[in-house]
Amino acid sequence: MRHTLREIAERINAKLVPDSAAKQEVGGIASLESAGPNDLVFVESAKFLDAALASRAGAIIAGEFAVNGSVAKPLLIVDQPRLAFVRVATFLQEPREAQIGVHPTAVVHPNAKLGLGASVGPHSTVGDAVTIGARTRIGANCSIATRVAIGAGCTIESNVSIYSHTTIGDRVHVHSGAVLGSDGFGFVPDRKTGHYEKFPQIGRLQIGDDVEIGANCTIDRGALDATIIARGVKLDNMVHIGHNVQIGEDVVIAAQTGISGSSTIGDKCIIGGQVGIADHVTIESGVILGAQCGVPSGKIIRGAGVVFWGTPARPIKQHLKELAALARAAKSKE
Amino acid sequence: MRHTLREIAERINAKLVPDSAAKQEVGGIASLESAGPNDLVFVESAKFLDAALASRAGAIIAGEFAVNGSVAKPLLIVDQPRLAFVRVATFLQEPREAQIGVHPTAVVHPNAKLGLGASVGPHSTVGDAVTIGARTRIGANCSIATRVAIGAGCTIESNVSIYSHTTIGDRVHVHSGAVLGSDGFGFVPDRKTGHYEKFPQIGRLQIGDDVEIGANCTIDRGALDATIIARGVKLDNMVHIGHNVQIGEDVVIAAQTGISGSSTIGDKCIIGGQVGIADHVTIESGVILGAQCGVPSGKIIRGAGVVFWGTPARPIKQHLKELAALARAAKSKE
Amino acid sequence: MRHTLREIAERINAKLVPDSAAKQEVGGIASLESAGPNDLVFVESAKFLDAALASRAGAIIAGEFAVNGSVAKPLLIVDQPRLAFVRVATFLQEPREAQIGVHPTAVVHPNAKLGLGASVGPHSTVGDAVTIGARTRIGANCSIATRVAIGAGCTIESNVSIYSHTTIGDRVHVHSGAVLGSDGFGFVPDRKTGHYEKFPQIGRLQIGDDVEIGANCTIDRGALDATIIARGVKLDNMVHIGHNVQIGEDVVIAAQTGISGSSTIGDKCIIGGQVGIADHVTIESGVILGAQCGVPSGKIIRGAGVVFWGTPARPIKQHLKELAALARAAKSKE
Repeated sequence: MRHTLREIAERINAKLVPDSAAKQEVGGIASLESAGPNDLVFVESAKFLDAALASRAGAIIAGEFAVNGSVAKPLLIVDQPRLAFVRVATFLQEPREAQIGVHPTAVVHPNAKLGLGASVGPHSTVGDAVTIGARTRIGANCSIATRVAIGAGCTIESNVSIYSHTTIGDRVHVHSGAVLGSDGFGFVPDRKTGHYEKFPQIGRLQIGDDVEIGANCTIDRGALDATIIARGVKLDNMVHIGHNVQIGEDVVIAAQTGISGSSTIGDKCIIGGQVGIADHVTIESGVILGAQCGVPSGKIIRGAGVVFWGTPARPIKQHLKELAALARAAKSKE
Repeated sequence: MRHTLREIAERINAKLVPDSAAKQEVGGIASLESAGPNDLVFVESAKFLDAALASRAGAIIAGEFAVNGSVAKPLLIVDQPRLAFVRVATFLQEPREAQIGVHPTAVVHPNAKLGLGASVGPHSTVGDAVTIGARTRIGANCSIATRVAIGAGCTIESNVSIYSHTTIGDRVHVHSGAVLGSDGFGFVPDRKTGHYEKFPQIGRLQIGDDVEIGANCTIDRGALDATIIARGVKLDNMVHIGHNVQIGEDVVIAAQTGISGSSTIGDKCIIGGQVGIADHVTIESGVILGAQCGVPSGKIIRGAGVVFWGTPARPIKQHLKELAALARAAKSKE
Repeated sequence: MRHTLREIAERINAKLVPDSAAKQEVGGIASLESAGPNDLVFVESAKFLDAALASRAGAIIAGEFAVNGSVAKPLLIVDQPRLAFVRVATFLQEPREAQIGVHPTAVVHPNAKLGLGASVGPHSTVGDAVTIGARTRIGANCSIATRVAIGAGCTIESNVSIYSHTTIGDRVHVHSGAVLGSDGFGFVPDRKTGHYEKFPQIGRLQIGDDVEIGANCTIDRGALDATIIARGVKLDNMVHIGHNVQIGEDVVIAAQTGISGSSTIGDKCIIGGQVGIADHVTIESGVILGAQCGVPSGKIIRGAGVVFWGTPARPIKQHLKELAALARAAKSKE
């Protein structure tokens, strides 16, 4: 569906330059490389403006920096061009194919409650006393155990397993292969035999609104109480979260990072890929952990906006000094 | 179901203090934070005794340290409080919902043999010549290929894939998304073309009794012979085990650790999270590998009870000295 | 099925020593440890020749080094013994059980097109406008979304999820639990609220011929354009590949490695396990990255045949010097 630049400008609160382009239409978004005349593109800095102007795009979302000089293409001027592009994309995206209701091959327990417009894909199982909110879509081959509660407007992709007693908020997107609410890892050795016996893993997993969970992530339920993922958390693929972990709002975690049992992550932390956080760690709000760094058991890491790196994780300035000292020491021996 | 403290004391071989509490009943277990009057809690050291006494719990499992002084709540005194708590939890847990037999949507080959009380969940497939032991439960959406043998009393959660010729002992718990018996990673370059051809991956995977396998783990079959996971091994989520690996009894491996082909892990090793063990490595019995450490190809690591850390993995004392030396070197330059 | 050594010698272009063994037959392959008289084994160096001769194998594939001295067993002499063994294995392997056609429990969209001899396993779903090439086998519990194209002679194991618009070449083997074409990880913070909004992830995933993808791998689609995996790439288990990544031909990547968005890997690179490659990195052709090393954002790594190690990744010679310097510094303090 195509829209005029005026419509789009109003939608994202942009200034259209020149105003004479108001009736021009676009219908999609694209990268600079692949854009055609029907597409919108965006640039965040003056550095890429020439490339955007040279592209085949129909119009450009840009910041104030773009307004100087002559205008070869219509510009939509906004404060946050990338954010405006995201919102245009949402506005322009085609409505998803209707797939309302329960596929005939799905097995849904008679005591499960599905909201208006909810759907369950082929070969999925929905257990006793499950609730699924309005417009939530469950993909194919999902297993949703007893007493799970999923909010409204969620998307659960295919091959997802959700263990019993997991609760999920609204507008949550869970990618394929994710496992939610599995048993935590806790075993107690019998000092007499050396054999391990399993500590009870009977707690809950609680996931807030607007969370995204990447493909093949695993999030364990609490041992006795709850594992908590707060509103707005975004997990990349293959992130592992242990039992009793608490993750604050708007935390972003890149792929293959693992967080061990009972650790706490404050709001708005940014955590790189392949980071390892041991058990009973506290990462205070706003901390940034560089890729592959490691935080040992029980540590407290603080400093909003401070970047930590290395294992054991230390402020990046210190770590870089150490790397430089190491290079000097190796050289002095030559 | 509620039980008297006398019954529980007998079950875990505890001394009840005071004996007058023998007829008091409890029905569950809980953490100190969430316990109510119906719940048992435990404390392992004097440090947490006050918190346990201040909790709403009905009774406390504790060590001898707790017996001094006045008693505000009934105590169950044992040698290993955490272990006793585990056993009480098993004793008190409610019997699982009956789900006997094969779900009508499951596809079970006529030559498969199911033991008494075994069950197969919705949309699972059980192949030719598979045997499944008594009381073993297969969840939803599992794929169990030909000639797999699973013992008695196992739980295979949903969305598990088991390749042909895998054998699994008794009381094994496999969590969702795990892949057992997949092809190992072996490719041979043709020196003339530079292209790789696949080395045969036709061996077996053999898993002993009382093993737990976390969500989304992958364990490859042997190339020509077998990959072997011995009795009592516990794997956290997303552990990867390559072809021809042998893991000894009562080994514990935390999340996201990977073990490459043909490596051997001795009995009772404890391996942290995100550890990398290259191919043809030998980890002797009782070694402890700290989180994120790395063991290069062909190395032998020995020392029961010795902790290794870093990459390449070295005794932790040495590694900590090196970290201290590095910090000094960086500082001296300032 | 058994074959004469003459037949096998012709098949792999080997010199049979002694020629008098030409009519002897073998029917399988095995390791030195498990071989019986019906099996072929191989040795790549003189070091293992005695063990091969002492084994119960019927014949040995070896290099010229084996021809000296008396011959206790028939030898098949070739240039590349391991490669010849691989090819014999392919020649000897029994044809797979026939499983032609669509299982009655599979849900295949009427607009999907299946090639001659293609099969779809139990409880799999094949979406609208999907094409599946001749002889391609889809396992159980797979979810293949709309507009996916899979070539000929592929094997898709059980519990695989393939998102819409993914294209896959010929002879590709995808192991269980893999997720192909999932959304990339891109979120844009609104500076006013601190909340993240999702960047569009509407690109494609394109996989070339002869690719192998290990169990529980995740490969994201491009954000606006494509993620590209070229011909002959081999991925071990649990490899993560982010959006817009491009991987060149004949690249081999060991388990649990992750490659972040928009990075490029040149042809014939060899990448160890648990390696982390950040975003917008360029790894030039032929580079070798040691296990667990890390390449920070935007870096360019070059040098065909050069091994890099550590984080940040540096040439291994330099890294080893640094490790030695560190050990000296720690010791000098004692």
